[in-house]
Amino acid sequence: MKQKTKLINPLQEIPTTSRRQFLLCSAALGGAALTAAAPARAGTENLSIPAWSKRSGDPVLWHPYGQPSAQQSHVVRRTLPGAPVPGAGASWTPLQNLHGNITPNGLVFERHHAGIPNIDAALHRLVIHGLVKQPLLLTMDDLLRFPAVSRIHFLECSGNTSREWRAPVSNSVQFSHGLLSNCEWTGVRLSTVLDEAGVLPAAQWLLAEGADAAGVSRSIPLAKAFEDALLVYAQNGEMLRPEQGYPLRLLLPGWEGNMSIKWLRRLKVADKPFFARNETSKYTDLLPDGTSRIFSFGMDAKSVITYPSPDHKLRDKGFYEISGLAWTGQGRIKRVDVSTDGGKSWREARLDGVVLDRALTRFRIDWQWDGGPATLQSRAIDETGYVQPTLQQLIAKRGLNSAYHNNAIQSWAVAADGSIKNVHV
Amino acid sequence: MKQKTKLINPLQEIPTTSRRQFLLCSAALGGAALTAAAPARAGTENLSIPAWSKRSGDPVLWHPYGQPSAQQSHVVRRTLPGAPVPGAGASWTPLQNLHGNITPNGLVFERHHAGIPNIDAALHRLVIHGLVKQPLLLTMDDLLRFPAVSRIHFLECSGNTSREWRAPVSNSVQFSHGLLSNCEWTGVRLSTVLDEAGVLPAAQWLLAEGADAAGVSRSIPLAKAFEDALLVYAQNGEMLRPEQGYPLRLLLPGWEGNMSIKWLRRLKVADKPFFARNETSKYTDLLPDGTSRIFSFGMDAKSVITYPSPDHKLRDKGFYEISGLAWTGQGRIKRVDVSTDGGKSWREARLDGVVLDRALTRFRIDWQWDGGPATLQSRAIDETGYVQPTLQQLIAKRGLNSAYHNNAIQSWAVAADGSIKNVHV
Repeated sequence: MKQKTKLINPLQEIPTTSRRQFLLCSAALGGAALTAAAPARAGTENLSIPAWSKRSGDPVLWHPYGQPSAQQSHVVRRTLPGAPVPGAGASWTPLQNLHGNITPNGLVFERHHAGIPNIDAALHRLVIHGLVKQPLLLTMDDLLRFPAVSRIHFLECSGNTSREWRAPVSNSVQFSHGLLSNCEWTGVRLSTVLDEAGVLPAAQWLLAEGADAAGVSRSIPLAKAFEDALLVYAQNGEMLRPEQGYPLRLLLPGWEGNMSIKWLRRLKVADKPFFARNETSKYTDLLPDGTSRIFSFGMDAKSVITYPSPDHKLRDKGFYEISGLAWTGQGRIKRVDVSTDGGKSWREARLDGVVLDRALTRFRIDWQWDGGPATLQSRAIDETGYVQPTLQQLIAKRGLNSAYHNNAIQSWAVAADGSIKNVHV
Repeated sequence: MKQKTKLINPLQEIPTTSRRQFLLCSAALGGAALTAAAPARAGTENLSIPAWSKRSGDPVLWHPYGQPSAQQSHVVRRTLPGAPVPGAGASWTPLQNLHGNITPNGLVFERHHAGIPNIDAALHRLVIHGLVKQPLLLTMDDLLRFPAVSRIHFLECSGNTSREWRAPVSNSVQFSHGLLSNCEWTGVRLSTVLDEAGVLPAAQWLLAEGADAAGVSRSIPLAKAFEDALLVYAQNGEMLRPEQGYPLRLLLPGWEGNMSIKWLRRLKVADKPFFARNETSKYTDLLPDGTSRIFSFGMDAKSVITYPSPDHKLRDKGFYEISGLAWTGQGRIKRVDVSTDGGKSWREARLDGVVLDRALTRFRIDWQWDGGPATLQSRAIDETGYVQPTLQQLIAKRGLNSAYHNNAIQSWAVAADGSIKNVHV
């Protein structure tokens, strides 16, 4: 039975001989698999007790609503210059700094067409009208009283990766793939509310409209509305953030993010689509023959390596775990393959944790870097058998006029100095 | 084909007759099941376009790291007076305001013994020593280079609900059950790092010690360390918050929270437990015969109704969805039963979403409130067959000297005026 003494310097308990042996050994490791994770060090470790172990720290409730460490202040959403209209723009999620599948609410990407409306939830109303037996005017209290469900789903802007069609523009996965997040959403099944209103037999479509000044609206097939659409008021447990639609948004699992209308104020049931601005002049895909893909709702299987990626630098050869995210709007991810030679050979990655329907899936694979140039790629395969295409395959099918729905395989080139950049191979 | 006009007042599109009918109907609903969710209203809805729909809102990146709506400023962790030592204390998660299974990082409960140390992650070290072939001194860069896993698990302080043994003290689920959170954790399997160090044959236990001024330490059976213990650096995708152990904590799935040592600086491998302060004078359970349960690590099955609970008031009779959380340190939740008559009769609740191993599981069940007094209870049953006990059953077994591990069935009494309070029945 040994009684612990307070505030031991941990290193004082390592006999001097062991410590020397360890530091020597640590400095000598280098090539072996996992032990390469212990780098060479100068043997000049400061063995004194750090200041933070000597005195009581910040009190409980230092932040009643907690904040990240000040040392993590570089982990933020970022934007790009050039939004043409005040309030219109996007910010990207720092995927290079994230480690799991869940995106914390503070880092969920943004895409606004007329800024973030400052809505008073007590005055907000959802109207359901059109081809219904009984129009409804619902308060947030009403919506919170309906039966609810919680589901983890990804949300991806169909404009994600849109700058990468012609050249490898973004030298950060934040800007190449960061219009992407994955959260637990809680709300009412849209079908529950539509059943309350009583949809008439002629109904086929729905217009969903936001309460922002742009009045962003999209036509939604009624089948999707009844299949799995949610009227969402909470995200990762707490009420939606203002920039995510507070107090109410639509969520259409697996479909392009623009359709999951934020600040939702109106659902109009109709017999035809509405051909609103955001499904005609925008969010359509111009094909080589001059026609457009329209109502290209579903997001196809896609993946990207987030570590290592251009924001990182490999410090020495040896063991690394390559890690990234895979997702599909068509169900579950079945497999992710990873190449370190630009697609010549592939190895199957591990899918981490429980693979959920239309949710981000973290993949991981061991890699021994030999210190030479390497080209890293990942390729997602979903449960329908669909295989994420190369950029060449995608361009062959869709041409170079498309902005949206770029789900091509991404390549990162590792240089001998450990630096990494975005390349087309 | 209909072209949408911008900034329609949604209500202007509802013909006057329909609107009148709706408001009348809405006012007349009352008793029917779901339609009771649409309350009587005065018919004086302000039909003008709200200010937030008329002008562009706050720009993108209003907060590079996002924050909740100012209207949700009441949704915070809270503390209680009386912590005896500066920096020692707890804050409770507002379960009454949460809607899903995930706890957002800003609302994860706190329990500190000497405050929150302000650790420089670049200088932080983890020492692994004792009965190992090769002592290790690891930087955060080292730890981030090891293979990682992400897992969703609950964390509950074994002191959760400790004030409720003798009387129903807390008139809020925040204070009765809020030392409880559920996050996605990412880090290295402890077994991976122990294998690097090479555990010697005599080893049976591990001392885990924090770098806070209290040097909180606990003895951990080596079997648990190898089974599923994690060295965690990320929580809900981002790096740990300072109050959750930044930059490194232990995570022992399903075991009492105190053992998941925060600010982890040392792991010492030994042949015996260490009998440290937090497993002898604290975190043991004094039994009626004067002996103590010691090393009572696992958290037994428990559940609590979070809506409605004492922070809420039912506004009128009719439909409500009762909702709450269930969890067990022994695996998965198999079933949750709910009673609205103080345990005389029970109905099986729906388990929402994918039921995960040692994670919070949201349960939901429909309820027609008849406007009279009611006593709400939930009872969790886990996959081992263990049934959450009544308080009487728990006291019969453990007496009234125990502070920790109160997993009794919680009762909320609904009064005819819709108010709710904590009761013992």
